[in-house]
Amino acid sequence: MTAASNVHGTALVGATADILDRVRAHAPRVHCITNVAAQVLTANMLLAVGAVPSLTISPDEVASFVASADALLINLGTFDANRREAVEIALDEADEDRTPWVLDPVLCDRSEARVAFARVLAAREPEVVRANQAEIAALTDRDPTPAVCDRFALDNMTVLAVTGATDLVTDGAKRLMIASGHPLMARATAVGCAGTALIAACLAVEDDPFLATAAGLLALGVAGEVAATGARGPGTLVPRLIDAVYLLDRHTLGVHAKLDGPLDVVS
Amino acid sequence: MTAASNVHGTALVGATADILDRVRAHAPRVHCITNVAAQVLTANMLLAVGAVPSLTISPDEVASFVASADALLINLGTFDANRREAVEIALDEADEDRTPWVLDPVLCDRSEARVAFARVLAAREPEVVRANQAEIAALTDRDPTPAVCDRFALDNMTVLAVTGATDLVTDGAKRLMIASGHPLMARATAVGCAGTALIAACLAVEDDPFLATAAGLLALGVAGEVAATGARGPGTLVPRLIDAVYLLDRHTLGVHAKLDGPLDVVS
Amino acid sequence: MTAASNVHGTALVGATADILDRVRAHAPRVHCITNVAAQVLTANMLLAVGAVPSLTISPDEVASFVASADALLINLGTFDANRREAVEIALDEADEDRTPWVLDPVLCDRSEARVAFARVLAAREPEVVRANQAEIAALTDRDPTPAVCDRFALDNMTVLAVTGATDLVTDGAKRLMIASGHPLMARATAVGCAGTALIAACLAVEDDPFLATAAGLLALGVAGEVAATGARGPGTLVPRLIDAVYLLDRHTLGVHAKLDGPLDVVS
Repeated sequence: MTAASNVHGTALVGATADILDRVRAHAPRVHCITNVAAQVLTANMLLAVGAVPSLTISPDEVASFVASADALLINLGTFDANRREAVEIALDEADEDRTPWVLDPVLCDRSEARVAFARVLAAREPEVVRANQAEIAALTDRDPTPAVCDRFALDNMTVLAVTGATDLVTDGAKRLMIASGHPLMARATAVGCAGTALIAACLAVEDDPFLATAAGLLALGVAGEVAATGARGPGTLVPRLIDAVYLLDRHTLGVHAKLDGPLDVVS
Repeated sequence: MTAASNVHGTALVGATADILDRVRAHAPRVHCITNVAAQVLTANMLLAVGAVPSLTISPDEVASFVASADALLINLGTFDANRREAVEIALDEADEDRTPWVLDPVLCDRSEARVAFARVLAAREPEVVRANQAEIAALTDRDPTPAVCDRFALDNMTVLAVTGATDLVTDGAKRLMIASGHPLMARATAVGCAGTALIAACLAVEDDPFLATAAGLLALGVAGEVAATGARGPGTLVPRLIDAVYLLDRHTLGVHAKLDGPLDVVS
Repeated sequence: MTAASNVHGTALVGATADILDRVRAHAPRVHCITNVAAQVLTANMLLAVGAVPSLTISPDEVASFVASADALLINLGTFDANRREAVEIALDEADEDRTPWVLDPVLCDRSEARVAFARVLAAREPEVVRANQAEIAALTDRDPTPAVCDRFALDNMTVLAVTGATDLVTDGAKRLMIASGHPLMARATAVGCAGTALIAACLAVEDDPFLATAAGLLALGVAGEVAATGARGPGTLVPRLIDAVYLLDRHTLGVHAKLDGPLDVVS
């Protein structure tokens, strides 16, 4: 896999740049029910990319915030009674308004209660699910091979992104691999959560959830590579990552994109 | 409006430097009931300017923290039942002790429940209300012209700061405009909230709420300009902003102050 | 007290480097019940040192997280009903599993309810208590002389660290002084809390709590000195501090260690 190694890759770079332009032009509102370690970085990533974040979990007003939002993010990293109630209200409102939403089942591999709730939410057909290897293994109760991931996407009518050193994006019919990024990103809290927020911002302006997911993850991976140049550790990486998202352009995406696919799933 | 363009401006620069000196000398305690995106930055801004922050919302102890505080900040950005209960307890204690307080009705334009609560709080005569254009429009249910802002200040016996590219400060009798600042500040979460915290720190050592408000906003705007020099985006802006508040001195304030007024309101 | 001024000091530098190596090799899980201002920095410090943080306070799953953790941190900086319930569940689980834990009674000097709860927790024999001068004075209801600190450690079967410009570590039988660090560290929120998290990470891989405490505080102090070189204020200090923890090695520890002891307590 080399930089923008194929014709598909080149097209994806252009599509990502185009989606980011639309985010900046339209400043979509993204409502986020997210965890306590991710709230600030999520808000800052959304502001950096050109979106408008909100974070309330108050049952009195979460429906009102979702009603005026262009996309919704549900992150289970803090799994308390207040957030669970807020999630139910938010999803009912999103269903009614056909607002696209993305599920991030953070650490569902560490708690039975959490994985059970994550499965219920996944069955409500989020446009996108973003998980790491351990989380998708817990969700599917299987070794998360690409075929298992495809099946999960088909069963839940969703796009699944499994992130790691190389990200896999699948809708069950086609798969994309994204290898952009840097190991330091895993050493700062909530960087993955912030990536899911970028997917949500892309979903707010792009009807194709596969493309929105690819764009969000490519943006994060490329920004991470840019930020890691000159960062001495994870502390200085984070502010540089936010800057890199803010400054992201077509040229930079092209230089750092490491893509394979999308290729049709052979079943 | 040029840098310290008039004699009033020059006087305000000196008064602001003097107030900041008093904050550093006395290390006043500022209790903050604030939102989840603002808590860390608010604490860090207060520490940087020389104040001592506390953040508890626990009903068992919020009265005790307010009783030993020199100023109180009420920010509605997270509007949950716990915080509403804490606000009631905190304001009763502040009333009893005559502790000055500032209200920041964050995003009250996005929720009916929130604007209703904000109006009740504004009627309790905070020393200062800090809002943006959309929030003051929601609070007054009108197009927020300067005359509408003056009227709001008079009706609620408060100083009103309406912040944006240019900030307006009014007590209903006189108006000040502050144009110091940088567009990047709007691209990082909770920078406005942190500005309200600086106003609270100034209120803790300065009896004139108009002057305390002007000092807090001028400090934030000037620090923002300093921080933006060399920042590549909103990520690196924030740590530099905290440094700039920490290092703020009379000379820097004078170089970056862009003020008009205070001028008497002509009614 | 000079850099690694005695044979004990030299040994401690080596022991600290060895403990940090073990943290990096084993990536221990540290569950943290901590305050709202400290959550993000605590998670980032633990990731930087090589540990795996978790933060949940949900009663449904805190036992499950503690059961799979290698150390537990209890920080009282946010003292709400949810956290108190989570603390009880977490400590019961830690007792059952013999998981080492550290208590950080943040701001217990500012509230009667908090100091009462802190005393109950201290009596449950945490491996380590980390407090500042005001907090240990509140806990012991005495002027916190070294002898009073020794007595507290003996009475509670714990190692006590009293942090400040110079840190004192005592188990009642021996005392160590650590003077590494920088005044800017006190101007950023939750740096002390993050230091307690480093102690917890060390406790996860080191059976001797005195040594784990010394290692965590020495790591923080040395990283703070390194970070302060070139930081203009507390804003840029914090990302540099995280980087410095990430990069910490035996040579750097040796250069910046300012230690006295451990010396036997003369009673």
